[in-house]
Amino acid sequence: MNPLVILKILSFLLIIVSGFMAIPAGIALYHGEFTSLHGFALTVSVVVFIATIIQILLRHKKVEILTTRDGFLLVTCSWVFASIIGAFPFYLSGVIPSFTDAFFETVSGFTTTGASILTDIESLPKSLLFWRSLTHWLGGMGIVVLAVAILPMMGIGGLQLIRAEAPGPTVDRISPRITKTAKILWFIYIGFTILQTLLLMIGGMDLFDSLTHTFGTLATGGFSTKNASVGHFNSAYIDGVITLFMLVAGINFSLHYRMLTGRFNSLYRDTEIKAYLFIFIISTAIIALSLYGNTYHTIGESLRYASFQAANIMTTTGFATTDYEQWVPFAHTILFILMFIGGCSGSTGGGIKVIRLVILLKQALNEMKLLIHPRGVFALKISGNMVKKNIVYAVMGFFFLYIMILLIVTFAIAFDGHDITTSFSTALATLGNIGPGFGKIGPTENYAFYEDYIKWVLSFAMIVGRLELYTVLVLCMPEFWRR
Amino acid sequence: MNPLVILKILSFLLIIVSGFMAIPAGIALYHGEFTSLHGFALTVSVVVFIATIIQILLRHKKVEILTTRDGFLLVTCSWVFASIIGAFPFYLSGVIPSFTDAFFETVSGFTTTGASILTDIESLPKSLLFWRSLTHWLGGMGIVVLAVAILPMMGIGGLQLIRAEAPGPTVDRISPRITKTAKILWFIYIGFTILQTLLLMIGGMDLFDSLTHTFGTLATGGFSTKNASVGHFNSAYIDGVITLFMLVAGINFSLHYRMLTGRFNSLYRDTEIKAYLFIFIISTAIIALSLYGNTYHTIGESLRYASFQAANIMTTTGFATTDYEQWVPFAHTILFILMFIGGCSGSTGGGIKVIRLVILLKQALNEMKLLIHPRGVFALKISGNMVKKNIVYAVMGFFFLYIMILLIVTFAIAFDGHDITTSFSTALATLGNIGPGFGKIGPTENYAFYEDYIKWVLSFAMIVGRLELYTVLVLCMPEFWRR
Repeated sequence: MNPLVILKILSFLLIIVSGFMAIPAGIALYHGEFTSLHGFALTVSVVVFIATIIQILLRHKKVEILTTRDGFLLVTCSWVFASIIGAFPFYLSGVIPSFTDAFFETVSGFTTTGASILTDIESLPKSLLFWRSLTHWLGGMGIVVLAVAILPMMGIGGLQLIRAEAPGPTVDRISPRITKTAKILWFIYIGFTILQTLLLMIGGMDLFDSLTHTFGTLATGGFSTKNASVGHFNSAYIDGVITLFMLVAGINFSLHYRMLTGRFNSLYRDTEIKAYLFIFIISTAIIALSLYGNTYHTIGESLRYASFQAANIMTTTGFATTDYEQWVPFAHTILFILMFIGGCSGSTGGGIKVIRLVILLKQALNEMKLLIHPRGVFALKISGNMVKKNIVYAVMGFFFLYIMILLIVTFAIAFDGHDITTSFSTALATLGNIGPGFGKIGPTENYAFYEDYIKWVLSFAMIVGRLELYTVLVLCMPEFWRR
Repeated sequence: MNPLVILKILSFLLIIVSGFMAIPAGIALYHGEFTSLHGFALTVSVVVFIATIIQILLRHKKVEILTTRDGFLLVTCSWVFASIIGAFPFYLSGVIPSFTDAFFETVSGFTTTGASILTDIESLPKSLLFWRSLTHWLGGMGIVVLAVAILPMMGIGGLQLIRAEAPGPTVDRISPRITKTAKILWFIYIGFTILQTLLLMIGGMDLFDSLTHTFGTLATGGFSTKNASVGHFNSAYIDGVITLFMLVAGINFSLHYRMLTGRFNSLYRDTEIKAYLFIFIISTAIIALSLYGNTYHTIGESLRYASFQAANIMTTTGFATTDYEQWVPFAHTILFILMFIGGCSGSTGGGIKVIRLVILLKQALNEMKLLIHPRGVFALKISGNMVKKNIVYAVMGFFFLYIMILLIVTFAIAFDGHDITTSFSTALATLGNIGPGFGKIGPTENYAFYEDYIKWVLSFAMIVGRLELYTVLVLCMPEFWRR
């Protein structure tokens, strides 16, 4: 363990995060939102002051000597501390008077969950609305690099798989090659951001709304600047653009990279993307069929709302265009099942992830073949490559832990008297980084009514879910801190 | 595959099942219930006639040449055909006019689920009430032998574990030693039956009610002869006796055997029984605390109802002493979580089973240790013995399949417009062989309102759940039928 090196990187990261606060601070200045400006200025100065001192004191520490163990601690601390400093502008400006609420909202931002404690979003100063959406975008940026380049190296939950370049299950030192990968990924991420913003502006949205909704889309976050969310714009074009980019954000970014460099055959070989699109198309079709003739009267309208919600829930974004709780119960069930699935690995989407479910399904079939032919050997192939036993093991372990944490969080919520539907769907919506659910946290509701202790539990669930469970949970093992 | 041998054993089994119909037929004769008598007589004569012809035609076929593959088919067919012939007395007597309903009720009986389509149980003729409860007892008898002696040999879902005597994961031929094991297990089962019946009679129940409720308890079934179920008797003594025997029925019967032969140290060594009792005690304590002071006013009363329901749901019995849906929502959540757990392996209880969850939990912890020490080797021990990797694999596969089937059944139910709480808890209550759930199938409700197609899906779910998933699912694989 190298606590000083971790501290050095962490303080550098917090300087960057507070540096991004300059943008909303500028907006606050422009619109004369002085209490918000005060909040940003105070946060930035304190963070930069302390972090700079740390940087100076630790200037001789080399960053290369990080181990995977340091990695777990660093990654968890990054999300926790970014959320703490990110919460201060909300808190100091008095816009969110409770620090618990401010922290919850910011965790929800950085983990790209999109669960909100705000009851009247439009009453917020523009600068804070922008910051709120920016936390999504920054969180998404972090997750893309984490999920494509860092977590696979640390051998978490079978994610080794998505990185063909990594030879074994684990490497002991975090490679400096990450810097190069990160740059490519951010280039793609920023490219998509510009593209979607432009497309939304063509649809009649102003720059502010286009940018903030693009942040919410590409991070699969779901924060909007309107009380009625995307439904506010009531435009089939805007719904379509957002649906498309939600789907894009839910795809593995290393696949985007390969596509951009002309390697189109990776698309045909990739098991996960095929399963992802298959699930999306089937769900959209089923939901549209169930809505056609009762909720909506044209096929076009049914498809518009069905595809938006299928992409919205599956990629774990969590915008709203309509109150799906008013739909026929059968459509709920499709959304409920999609909540378990989530996006692709290496995307900004949350949930269990498509690839893991494909592996689990193939393994279950192999297990049955083994019962029929006890001496048989059955290979498990993904994208044409054999999957090693230890990866299948890790994926299975991940799945069990996911369900277990889901039930524990459900339990913690129900402890205060909330009904099962609300408790279970809240647990699912936070652990899977989705945002809205069913019952008291449906698409037209919010998380404001929850007791403080539940908001802390849910903040924890969002971070645990976002960081693929193990990153956070290993820190709870006594073994982690030994020696 | 030896279809003729399977047919021979199956027809023999059906002769036994219809032989047991002699008891309710006698009751029908005694009470002058002639339409029921007609139903029993017709069923028995047709079954015995056809089965005897099969026996005669196949008299030279040797039974020893069964393979594990034959085993899967035989076991599945046994439950399906026993349920078909068991349904005829209800159907032919006109007491359950729909064959779908009669089949559902009988599957629910033989799988020891206890889900009922009857709205007025007390209006049934005594003979049919007795037969209904007897299906539980016979199903429990079958399950004990299946779970202790047969399934572990076939290597299903990691159950190899519970049979220390079996050396490897699979043996190719079903051993004739089963006969000996079966006799011992039935001796214990019948012993418990006599004991509980006597204890209930001491509490003031008549022989008929004592016997039928004992059948429902020891099979962890849950059919009662009263509309208000066990609540009808409103006796703390009777609740206590039933709670105790539900717990007994949820324990591995091979452990009962070891205890009866004086090997008490197996109790201390057994990981599963310790976890089972721990979960029961903790759940009872938490539920009792949550009820004390609001639903019930004395600690004794709170403990009485809490322990009954904890045992009732965890062992997947499904009696009712009170409408737990009226309890505080927090108590629901405990019951909801217990619905996932189930009884011990080798018991008559359903669900995922305690041992599997213990293995999954230990494996998840090992997985985390492995992330901390990538080159470490971490053993997984149960009852002091190392658990082999292939068993952990099988357990993990089982868990995933269980959750997947749960969601598929939920989907099938919601398809007809039922809400998520009802659909999900119905899936959980049938796949786990519990009986009651939440929403429209709460402890005071029944399954009568469901559409016919859903009753067939649920019948399938009950059989799949009862036979540890794989036994039935392998039959759906094309590989099973090849060569």
